[in-house]
Amino acid sequence: MTESFADRRARLMGPNVPTFYQSPVHIVKGQGVWLWDANGKRYLDCYNNVAHVGHCHPRVVAAIAGQAATLNTHTRYFHDGVLDYIERLTATLNHGISQAIMVCTGSEANDIALRMAQAVTGKTGMIATDNTYHGNTTAVSQLSTRKPPIGGYAPNIRLVPSPETLRPVGGTVEGQASAFAAHVTRAIAELEDAGFGFAGMLFCPVFANEGLPTLPPGFLAPTIKAIRQAGGVVIADEVQPGFGRVGSHFWGHDLMGIAPDIVTVGKPMANGHPVAAVLARPDGMAAFRDAFNYFNTFGGNPVSAAACNAVLDVMIDEGLQQNAAVVSAHILNRLRALRHPLLADVRATGMFFGVEFVTDAAMTPATEFVANLVEVMVDRGFILNKIGRGGGALKIRPPLPFSVENADQLVDTLADVLKILPVPA
Amino acid sequence: MTESFADRRARLMGPNVPTFYQSPVHIVKGQGVWLWDANGKRYLDCYNNVAHVGHCHPRVVAAIAGQAATLNTHTRYFHDGVLDYIERLTATLNHGISQAIMVCTGSEANDIALRMAQAVTGKTGMIATDNTYHGNTTAVSQLSTRKPPIGGYAPNIRLVPSPETLRPVGGTVEGQASAFAAHVTRAIAELEDAGFGFAGMLFCPVFANEGLPTLPPGFLAPTIKAIRQAGGVVIADEVQPGFGRVGSHFWGHDLMGIAPDIVTVGKPMANGHPVAAVLARPDGMAAFRDAFNYFNTFGGNPVSAAACNAVLDVMIDEGLQQNAAVVSAHILNRLRALRHPLLADVRATGMFFGVEFVTDAAMTPATEFVANLVEVMVDRGFILNKIGRGGGALKIRPPLPFSVENADQLVDTLADVLKILPVPA
Repeated sequence: MTESFADRRARLMGPNVPTFYQSPVHIVKGQGVWLWDANGKRYLDCYNNVAHVGHCHPRVVAAIAGQAATLNTHTRYFHDGVLDYIERLTATLNHGISQAIMVCTGSEANDIALRMAQAVTGKTGMIATDNTYHGNTTAVSQLSTRKPPIGGYAPNIRLVPSPETLRPVGGTVEGQASAFAAHVTRAIAELEDAGFGFAGMLFCPVFANEGLPTLPPGFLAPTIKAIRQAGGVVIADEVQPGFGRVGSHFWGHDLMGIAPDIVTVGKPMANGHPVAAVLARPDGMAAFRDAFNYFNTFGGNPVSAAACNAVLDVMIDEGLQQNAAVVSAHILNRLRALRHPLLADVRATGMFFGVEFVTDAAMTPATEFVANLVEVMVDRGFILNKIGRGGGALKIRPPLPFSVENADQLVDTLADVLKILPVPA
Repeated sequence: MTESFADRRARLMGPNVPTFYQSPVHIVKGQGVWLWDANGKRYLDCYNNVAHVGHCHPRVVAAIAGQAATLNTHTRYFHDGVLDYIERLTATLNHGISQAIMVCTGSEANDIALRMAQAVTGKTGMIATDNTYHGNTTAVSQLSTRKPPIGGYAPNIRLVPSPETLRPVGGTVEGQASAFAAHVTRAIAELEDAGFGFAGMLFCPVFANEGLPTLPPGFLAPTIKAIRQAGGVVIADEVQPGFGRVGSHFWGHDLMGIAPDIVTVGKPMANGHPVAAVLARPDGMAAFRDAFNYFNTFGGNPVSAAACNAVLDVMIDEGLQQNAAVVSAHILNRLRALRHPLLADVRATGMFFGVEFVTDAAMTPATEFVANLVEVMVDRGFILNKIGRGGGALKIRPPLPFSVENADQLVDTLADVLKILPVPA
């Protein structure tokens, strides 16, 4: 009997390896915003932020191929590519952030950021939210809440309730900013009382994994004030919002009007080539570099730098941040025109959308309904997924070249499916 | 005034970023075993193990370019490339090791391996040697001894004296195997007494970073017995010896005649593309996968898998493991014919050589002499470096296509330089 793909995968990768969808798609080809499976079926990619400038963008592919044929080595030798890139990337940042450590994954970047905050402050206590994901190293996985970490919870971590749109911290949308900050203040006090002291807080400035809540201007001001007053370091995890996805700004923290000390970046920066980075001011960088002789064999290698530089070139030449601003406004308008008995909220932060469904007035997430909705949309050729507490929101987060026409294809189909999908009693 | 390259690098990357050599080389091109700097000067690469099948090997470059133009996405969708690769790679392994987690760096691989040992045993205590390096994450950097880790030493780690050729553990070469095992036994008892219990030991089977000591057959038997008796997991870090470098075997642990539970791999496996992996038996893999929902965005992506598959193809078609066996024997013979008043030992494990110099009968490492020797060799166009305690040994570890002719070029020049280099009084 022929072994199924799923069985072969489990035999070679082990059990419990995450897939998307009840019948995982078997993708063999990508181009721009399109993906094709092994049967030749075409999908509109409304989900993948890694293929930031579009799948297999020819300029990124050419940069990788050209540099891979010329030289690929490590940064203990001098090479211009990585320096040119850091210079360009830090030019997009304010707040005195002018230096970078290049690594290979967002997990590595956040793992460094935690230690940089500890090196700057001489303290070890860290805060994150209670419904997020920042990476998978031993240290960074302590900031996730899905399962108890192997070896037990680290005592120097505190997780605060994450902001939400429909179930706001403190009970009201108006009071959420101060209620969230109060939780942070309490966590800081706990860390100080426990003897760890407070090193800093690591968070996504738009709280993407938390469900992408709609937050008013200045939402983070009282939290930042609490962190600063306690001498802590502000770490902005820009793996999701960075690189123009939010449309109005290049960075999520600029959209939110905050000044981080450290910025971490990853997924979109090289369109899928394994690259990530920690960006910091010279004072923070020096504290880390003096405390730890960090070196990353693959980090900042010439091929990675070429891929990164090509992504910035494409961003500029194709006006992709502006496209994100224009197309996301169109998508948001169209999503807001949808009508459905369970539809509770439509929200966006640039080219990143949450479409939330609830089963009752208590705002219970419509977990099963959204799961079914995702499956039907995939079956109809639209790659998307779910997000937020209980998985009650559709997550739409396409590559940036997504067009108005693509948007209409997506929302037209979504409207059709919402008309026919059974609504739980 | 024009900013120097070193100044620009410090401005953009921060202080204290490691380089090689007093005047770091500025490499712009690589091909096979050759590198060229920005002035057109050519160097014979006698050092870089990342460019395992030779710099910019056209088949690896073509595999990367072709797959990057076709599809690059993550493993939550099905794709054949990563499964084909795991199937091929695990076919080279014995001891029931048949599964893999694909990641991006050796650091990530060892970070997982530590947690896998903890998930298998339910204990947290880990052992490594006191003169090594296994990676740079928060958890893995606890196994390095160069500087106190940021945040302080983890209490669940014990470091045992590393084996050496000229300064053996326990004082004699004959007694080193049992003396080393006795230190491991003591460390296990300490971890158990401290309440952590013993999860396992992570080590390079040929102790490459420790200085590549010459070890008799069966050297590790008493250590493995001690680990097994205590219920611990044996983790072989094959980042350096793996993939045929040792010549006689594909893996360092097979050369050393031991049966690891977990194998970690990295640098050479995709010739510089950021790929690494954790290889394990189904029981260990299941324990980890059940305890932690591990997912790595870039790990095992189609481009990485294509690069990995191409490296295996080249290894086989060009007979590079056999070349390592033949050429390394030639190099070792030629190095052993060298005569110099400070030369104390010449040793090899396949295509990886240590040439150790000492200043006195007490076997004090000739640190400064070797540092000067490296600088002069680089100036003459030979890329190599130093290794071992005190940096007293030349480290020679070329890409595997290194030929007998390359070997003669290297050793002829080394003999010339040894004749003229000032010997400290």
